[in-house]
Amino acid sequence: MLPIDDTPLVRDGKILILAMDHGLEHGPVDFEPVPETIDPETVFEVGTHDAVTAMAVQKGVAEAYYPSYEDDVNLLAKLNGTSNLWRGEPDSAVNCSVDYAAEELGADALGFTLYGGSNNEIEMAEEFRDAQEKAREHDLPMVMWSYPRGQGLRSDRDPETIAYAARLALELGADVAKVKYPGTPEAMEWAVDAAGKTKVVMSGGSKSDDYAFLKQVEECISAGGKGLAVGRNVFQRDNPVQILDALEKVIFEEQSAEQALDAVQ
Amino acid sequence: MLPIDDTPLVRDGKILILAMDHGLEHGPVDFEPVPETIDPETVFEVGTHDAVTAMAVQKGVAEAYYPSYEDDVNLLAKLNGTSNLWRGEPDSAVNCSVDYAAEELGADALGFTLYGGSNNEIEMAEEFRDAQEKAREHDLPMVMWSYPRGQGLRSDRDPETIAYAARLALELGADVAKVKYPGTPEAMEWAVDAAGKTKVVMSGGSKSDDYAFLKQVEECISAGGKGLAVGRNVFQRDNPVQILDALEKVIFEEQSAEQALDAVQ
Amino acid sequence: MLPIDDTPLVRDGKILILAMDHGLEHGPVDFEPVPETIDPETVFEVGTHDAVTAMAVQKGVAEAYYPSYEDDVNLLAKLNGTSNLWRGEPDSAVNCSVDYAAEELGADALGFTLYGGSNNEIEMAEEFRDAQEKAREHDLPMVMWSYPRGQGLRSDRDPETIAYAARLALELGADVAKVKYPGTPEAMEWAVDAAGKTKVVMSGGSKSDDYAFLKQVEECISAGGKGLAVGRNVFQRDNPVQILDALEKVIFEEQSAEQALDAVQ
Amino acid sequence: MLPIDDTPLVRDGKILILAMDHGLEHGPVDFEPVPETIDPETVFEVGTHDAVTAMAVQKGVAEAYYPSYEDDVNLLAKLNGTSNLWRGEPDSAVNCSVDYAAEELGADALGFTLYGGSNNEIEMAEEFRDAQEKAREHDLPMVMWSYPRGQGLRSDRDPETIAYAARLALELGADVAKVKYPGTPEAMEWAVDAAGKTKVVMSGGSKSDDYAFLKQVEECISAGGKGLAVGRNVFQRDNPVQILDALEKVIFEEQSAEQALDAVQ
Amino acid sequence: MLPIDDTPLVRDGKILILAMDHGLEHGPVDFEPVPETIDPETVFEVGTHDAVTAMAVQKGVAEAYYPSYEDDVNLLAKLNGTSNLWRGEPDSAVNCSVDYAAEELGADALGFTLYGGSNNEIEMAEEFRDAQEKAREHDLPMVMWSYPRGQGLRSDRDPETIAYAARLALELGADVAKVKYPGTPEAMEWAVDAAGKTKVVMSGGSKSDDYAFLKQVEECISAGGKGLAVGRNVFQRDNPVQILDALEKVIFEEQSAEQALDAVQ
Repeated sequence: MLPIDDTPLVRDGKILILAMDHGLEHGPVDFEPVPETIDPETVFEVGTHDAVTAMAVQKGVAEAYYPSYEDDVNLLAKLNGTSNLWRGEPDSAVNCSVDYAAEELGADALGFTLYGGSNNEIEMAEEFRDAQEKAREHDLPMVMWSYPRGQGLRSDRDPETIAYAARLALELGADVAKVKYPGTPEAMEWAVDAAGKTKVVMSGGSKSDDYAFLKQVEECISAGGKGLAVGRNVFQRDNPVQILDALEKVIFEEQSAEQALDAVQ
Repeated sequence: MLPIDDTPLVRDGKILILAMDHGLEHGPVDFEPVPETIDPETVFEVGTHDAVTAMAVQKGVAEAYYPSYEDDVNLLAKLNGTSNLWRGEPDSAVNCSVDYAAEELGADALGFTLYGGSNNEIEMAEEFRDAQEKAREHDLPMVMWSYPRGQGLRSDRDPETIAYAARLALELGADVAKVKYPGTPEAMEWAVDAAGKTKVVMSGGSKSDDYAFLKQVEECISAGGKGLAVGRNVFQRDNPVQILDALEKVIFEEQSAEQALDAVQ
Repeated sequence: MLPIDDTPLVRDGKILILAMDHGLEHGPVDFEPVPETIDPETVFEVGTHDAVTAMAVQKGVAEAYYPSYEDDVNLLAKLNGTSNLWRGEPDSAVNCSVDYAAEELGADALGFTLYGGSNNEIEMAEEFRDAQEKAREHDLPMVMWSYPRGQGLRSDRDPETIAYAARLALELGADVAKVKYPGTPEAMEWAVDAAGKTKVVMSGGSKSDDYAFLKQVEECISAGGKGLAVGRNVFQRDNPVQILDALEKVIFEEQSAEQALDAVQ
Repeated sequence: MLPIDDTPLVRDGKILILAMDHGLEHGPVDFEPVPETIDPETVFEVGTHDAVTAMAVQKGVAEAYYPSYEDDVNLLAKLNGTSNLWRGEPDSAVNCSVDYAAEELGADALGFTLYGGSNNEIEMAEEFRDAQEKAREHDLPMVMWSYPRGQGLRSDRDPETIAYAARLALELGADVAKVKYPGTPEAMEWAVDAAGKTKVVMSGGSKSDDYAFLKQVEECISAGGKGLAVGRNVFQRDNPVQILDALEKVIFEEQSAEQALDAVQ
Repeated sequence: MLPIDDTPLVRDGKILILAMDHGLEHGPVDFEPVPETIDPETVFEVGTHDAVTAMAVQKGVAEAYYPSYEDDVNLLAKLNGTSNLWRGEPDSAVNCSVDYAAEELGADALGFTLYGGSNNEIEMAEEFRDAQEKAREHDLPMVMWSYPRGQGLRSDRDPETIAYAARLALELGADVAKVKYPGTPEAMEWAVDAAGKTKVVMSGGSKSDDYAFLKQVEECISAGGKGLAVGRNVFQRDNPVQILDALEKVIFEEQSAEQALDAVQ
């Protein structure tokens, strides 16, 4: 575990990751609600917002666009990921080596998906081991996208599953666990407790209305969560700056969703 | 991403790859329409045409024939490929290492197939990662043959699939995406947008008549495509020089198919 | 085989390992009987008890918590382990390399699970080989969690299976074999004999009542067992110190379960 | 591609490989027609015939017998091979590393089987890549036993299949393609054309009568084939020297089968 | 092939290996006929008999017990092996690296099982390749336990199978082939012929009566076999020294079974 509070990924103990790996994970359809987001520069511009502590992208996007934004954006290199054309058990290709992310991309942090319960869980855990130990050599924080999924799972967001997901991140050596919101503040608190010193951030998920979304984030923060990793709920909005203004208030100033919404509208 | 505009693969921002890996991918039957093309020298001679920015061949063909053409042809070493005797899920053997291509073959660029949606997608993506990162060490442009195919695919050339294919090339770090033509200029434009800074070239496909073929290329170019990777549509013609003359006009001079045909006939 | 009697894992020829990898192997539910045990510090505090010769945890827990306890607790780094979300044949991901455990975690001993009889037995045995030979370079004792399990097993705790499990540890080069208690002192003695110079410790298993638990441990010791690896039977009790006081008497002073219970109550 | 005309494998542009890996591929039954051939020395003696440009054997046979014959026989180390006890899809174990063949066995050439169309084609092609690139470091000619076989094949010796087999050798970087005789001179010519600069030799196959066998070889040579790789059709004869005398005339002197037979009888 | 006649494994051209890997391969039940044999020291004491040219054990047993016997016993480190809890196709885990056996265990010879005809034959053959080539670096003789077994086999001890097994050892580069006795001296002779310069020893198998056992060994020797690898037929007897005395006469003095029995009783 790194003292990650002093890394660029964290500000005042909190984290707001703007993720844009949807072109790989979901395909270009995710950019249709706001067509100009198909151009990564559009989203990188959004990522220059002060609230964003890092942007999460795949290697190729980082290579092509990050050089223009390295002064204004911190880079979280997402190491694995897979298209949704894939029909096998949940799995994720390791698309970027840690050395390449650290030395060539200039990453400030790393991200890695683990599908606990998948028939590929063990292989993924071993790939995570290699990445995590290599990340330590570069003093880079490691964020685990901890998403139980696959043959072994009945529900991928009941409280026990989410608490287990958070714990996996701690046990395997992640500095930050990105988990789905388990539905209630109590369940979120359990997940936060299970993760121990590993910081928990919630996953933004598919686009929802402003209040509902901010309310979940507020609940996450008050339950001890340290922030958010969000994509569609920001870049699929017509006014991504406004929602980031609001998220900044909820996450970093610990305001309520209502307060934050009032302030930005 | 390399600044590939300054590499031999690109001329005036455009690309015309003459591919001759059909002996591996399809077998000698592809040479029957013009029997002398079974001799690689016949096709290498075609490849000396000014319009061709690189020839794509497998390692063995490069070893045996490229030494005689290295002054007149730029070499794109296709790193993977498989015979069509293969009956498994779409997959491709890595037949040439990057170091060998760069140091022994004298390659100017590299090519790699990814079958998104195949049950072998993840393994192929990881093989691509290794090749791509190694290619960077040699400053060699990487072209992805991005062909969604296999169990997960209903259609391998509907607009969404092709746009996804183009985006995969960007996300995974290819400099150029080779995709099938998705049928309409609008669909091609979507693919070009999805690929961002990664240049998109269309795949020539099986032989069609002169006008229909040139028209597709014209549509590709006007939709923002940067060129073509073509095999059968050149070397299966009795007069490959003529079609290359026409392609040169369509691709590099951005003439219409009609103009180009008129000029060369 | 190391002369492990002189290592921190062993005291007076005996071993008491407090295991806390349940967050990985079973999930946070194992902490519900004593909710504060979800905080690893709670269990590490228990681990400072004199009777405990080492605590067994996964890499991530060691990274996050062991720096505060390295003066008071000996660390056994459990190298492999898997969540119970996994539905395949018994298997275990190697989550930590030996070099990392030795050099970065500061481990005093190592642990490795082998599921004999699983369809993954051979792969696990080969992973064990690598770990064991590497452990020798660091002069670290190797404890095998020898748990026959999977397709090939009718019963995973009949005397023959447990004796076989103990022998596997010897044959493959473990210094200590952790096996389930086979039900009778005679069966335990067989296992101890089968293990030869490899020390045998029993596995604590799920929580049972004080006397029954201590009686098993007494039987184990009198049958030649060298101690215990225990988790739930300590940290799921309201008074873990008391049971450790009793275990200390049974294991290190070879008192009977009755004597030990009387002394601590 | 090596300038192999100057290597010991080739004489006057022609090749005659005496293969004796039948003990591995078929078992000792292949030695029953001439029982003394079970002793490798018997066959090595045959291999000292001037017509033989190299003997093809597995590593163990080379280690044990080649030291006595290295002045009189050129060694082709067959790198892979498998017993016919194997019941899986066609596959072949890599039994010898290239470095070992070059440095310890003193090989003059290397051989490698590829079963195109097998479910193991891709793995075999990648093993071939490693061997071929390593062979180049040692300047050793590489002969591919190119035998389409397995799930994907209806016929393993129709003209198209054999031409494809020959082309695979060229595309993947073999210097010599060993293929089955496709039945007619025209079909053989197609295979020779498909192989381009890669030399084609025919496989001797199971024992046939003198004339029929020599006639096939004659047809192969007149179709542009560069020779023969033969085992049973030599060592299963009572007078192997006589047939080699005849083969020498057909292959190196380009005599007809009739002329050759007349001369040696 | 090593000149192994000068290594400790061979005495006067003959070999008698006392194997004790039954704790791994069969489990502790094999020690029940003579209960004290569960203690490896009991069997190592037997192994100090002059007739024994080497003892074959797994890594862990060698680590724990060989240091006390290295002056009196030659060590054959058996590199692979698997428990009989395994229910898959015949396979064997590589439990010890060659470097470890040579440098840490002080092995005088190495052993490796190959299950020809198993679905794992190819993987095992490739593991054997690595071990064999590494063994050559250390100048250590390699003994192959050549046991055709698995899906492809109808009978694992008919003469053709055993001759094939012996030939596999030669072809793949073993110095000694350990095969089951094929039932008759003629069949044994075929196996010996098939193995060429590779020495053949018979496998002792399950316990049989003194005369029947010695008679088989006599037949093996008179058929050209070079000795025996035996476990149960020695250590499951009440008087293992007596049978070793007799074996010494049959193997090294080439006496008949009757003579040998008379002399020792």
